[in-house]
Amino acid sequence: MKKIVTKYQIKVQFYDLDPMNIVWHGNYVKYIEAARCDFFEKLNYTYKDMYKDGIMYPIAKMDLKYIKSAKFGDKLTVECILKELEPAILIKYNIYSGRDKILTASTMQMAVNAKNGETLYNAPKRLIEAVNNYE
Amino acid sequence: MKKIVTKYQIKVQFYDLDPMNIVWHGNYVKYIEAARCDFFEKLNYTYKDMYKDGIMYPIAKMDLKYIKSAKFGDKLTVECILKELEPAILIKYNIYSGRDKILTASTMQMAVNAKNGETLYNAPKRLIEAVNNYE
Amino acid sequence: MKKIVTKYQIKVQFYDLDPMNIVWHGNYVKYIEAARCDFFEKLNYTYKDMYKDGIMYPIAKMDLKYIKSAKFGDKLTVECILKELEPAILIKYNIYSGRDKILTASTMQMAVNAKNGETLYNAPKRLIEAVNNYE
Amino acid sequence: MKKIVTKYQIKVQFYDLDPMNIVWHGNYVKYIEAARCDFFEKLNYTYKDMYKDGIMYPIAKMDLKYIKSAKFGDKLTVECILKELEPAILIKYNIYSGRDKILTASTMQMAVNAKNGETLYNAPKRLIEAVNNYE
Repeated sequence: MKKIVTKYQIKVQFYDLDPMNIVWHGNYVKYIEAARCDFFEKLNYTYKDMYKDGIMYPIAKMDLKYIKSAKFGDKLTVECILKELEPAILIKYNIYSGRDKILTASTMQMAVNAKNGETLYNAPKRLIEAVNNYE
Repeated sequence: MKKIVTKYQIKVQFYDLDPMNIVWHGNYVKYIEAARCDFFEKLNYTYKDMYKDGIMYPIAKMDLKYIKSAKFGDKLTVECILKELEPAILIKYNIYSGRDKILTASTMQMAVNAKNGETLYNAPKRLIEAVNNYE
Repeated sequence: MKKIVTKYQIKVQFYDLDPMNIVWHGNYVKYIEAARCDFFEKLNYTYKDMYKDGIMYPIAKMDLKYIKSAKFGDKLTVECILKELEPAILIKYNIYSGRDKILTASTMQMAVNAKNGETLYNAPKRLIEAVNNYE
Repeated sequence: MKKIVTKYQIKVQFYDLDPMNIVWHGNYVKYIEAARCDFFEKLNYTYKDMYKDGIMYPIAKMDLKYIKSAKFGDKLTVECILKELEPAILIKYNIYSGRDKILTASTMQMAVNAKNGETLYNAPKRLIEAVNNYE
């Protein structure tokens, strides 16, 4: 499968901080979701396309490893790397603050038939094409 | 209109704190929403009933006054006071930590026809009955 | 007092949506906070400067009026308008989606001595200068 | 090591829902944090004790597996199971909705010297005693 890597910028906001004056660990889930949406937008296959294809891709698994903390105003780069499309979408994430890698994560999304909730093990054609056509 | 006052308990969680080690000001919007849902549940007219009546009650206005701060583990009481039902639902809120009043707020919710989005100026019959029957 | 108006861009994320598929009303508090931090950064007087001046500016009052809703992917512009500096900082906000004004809001921030918690009725000199020097 | 299992109740709030009308996947991080704080409270060794011991326990790793979804008003039970104390605190979580297990998760927390940020591989004495004395 073609290797696809995208980058997404985030600036740490005050409302994301915890009493240690660093980003609360749960807020990185938002950062990787924003980067993943940006990934699908760059791939030209968004949630609206999933909707048209009668498919949903809920998160089935997620893991995060915290390396360093981030502070108010830090400019972070979230890297998304597509690892697998079938039987499930597997994406790896690296978050960098300058040159420092501060977090790694991964998500697994299972395809589900939007009508009857059945698990699907093949990606929709248009998603496969979008991956093949990505430049 | 009959005076209805309900009380709802909340315990301050770590994830609600900001770098000053107090509840981040925006999180009180969650506290008053949880108390408002509890209010409608006690009234026996919930979101599901609104749905059946083909009506929605989005927030049209909200204001908050911050008096004192709340800390990790504080047990807060959110008081809801129904002020008006028509042409819009007006609820006042007082949040107490022990005997100290720490916040006052109010919300105005406009009734909207769920199908066509039109504003309605009368409350649904079942809501009016629910208010009249509240003990 | 010199009129200061800043503009801040936000793109609506999936995690900000509610079951009606629109931005949950409480999340606008984050949008106006992000815009306010950007305002102070453009003014060249940030939270770090407040810290050096031994002063804090907690939110004492906030109100929001909801005009229209925002959806996934919408690009919003948050306009901040400085209305008063003393005895408290008063900022007005307008949020636009394209040409549509979708929300207005205001916040009042009281100056507090960071050491003893006493309310202050004058702005720190450096903040007044920052406002006067803003171009 | 003594087996410690605690249970914590949560009621799903409106503000935790996403456009699919189910709990947004990232909000389970809050649910397990609330349950973990409750776990330490029942153990009688809270964040305040960590503070006195000059130690912090940030999250170093977290993983979540999503089995079923949760809806508005669902009453969930979060089970915490202490798996390891040293060299790091490892806790497993099961979330139940009625008899259905809807999520499993685990967190690893590394002990850090609060002053110099150095990693510690032994738990503080008082935490070990708290575990031994738990009934």
